[in-house]
Amino acid sequence: MITYEQFKTIEIRAGRIISAERIPDTDKLLKLSVDFAETDAAGNQKPRQIVSGIAQHFPDPAALVGKTCMFVTNLEPRLIRGFESQGMLFALSTADGAFSLLEPNAGIPPGTMAK
Amino acid sequence: MITYEQFKTIEIRAGRIISAERIPDTDKLLKLSVDFAETDAAGNQKPRQIVSGIAQHFPDPAALVGKTCMFVTNLEPRLIRGFESQGMLFALSTADGAFSLLEPNAGIPPGTMAK
Repeated sequence: MITYEQFKTIEIRAGRIISAERIPDTDKLLKLSVDFAETDAAGNQKPRQIVSGIAQHFPDPAALVGKTCMFVTNLEPRLIRGFESQGMLFALSTADGAFSLLEPNAGIPPGTMAK
Repeated sequence: MITYEQFKTIEIRAGRIISAERIPDTDKLLKLSVDFAETDAAGNQKPRQIVSGIAQHFPDPAALVGKTCMFVTNLEPRLIRGFESQGMLFALSTADGAFSLLEPNAGIPPGTMAK
């Protein structure tokens, strides 16, 4: 059991996938560019790079482009096979191989936090 | 920023809504019965009661019945208007009134944890 205050420390936001490509010489890894409506100091869109181990569910990574789904956005960045991951896809899978993204409806803009 | 270990303390699971009704004399509250594939000692299905402030998005609460969506399942139970809530709906809303459940696809059984 956790407290509501502990729960509130986690940020899970909607992000729109701008690009998705297989990381060479890996079985499972995709490198995503994801828009969370974040900008740099000059006001330019600043998508995040996110590495996710879902390649087996998306034989054609292009199928992900344009989708809005959910990501943990306040984890410390970490290096995965030399690529920095600035967040983590938040999705569901089962022991027998079922998999699902969590896709909000079209009214939800990138950057919206789930709560 | 949080660590991966902090993130792992939160359980967010798919639950199937069995019933949904308005809590009388409230503007926003619905009382849901939600199946997480949990059972009691005798093996009988033991759904949870969850109170959620989403009545304005579902004028007919029956529209929720049968849906599978996401819930925080390891929060301490709390009393809301006299009703115990054994979890919290995990969804998205925006300042201008947009709202979205997070509905996994049909291959995901109740009880599956997102990660």
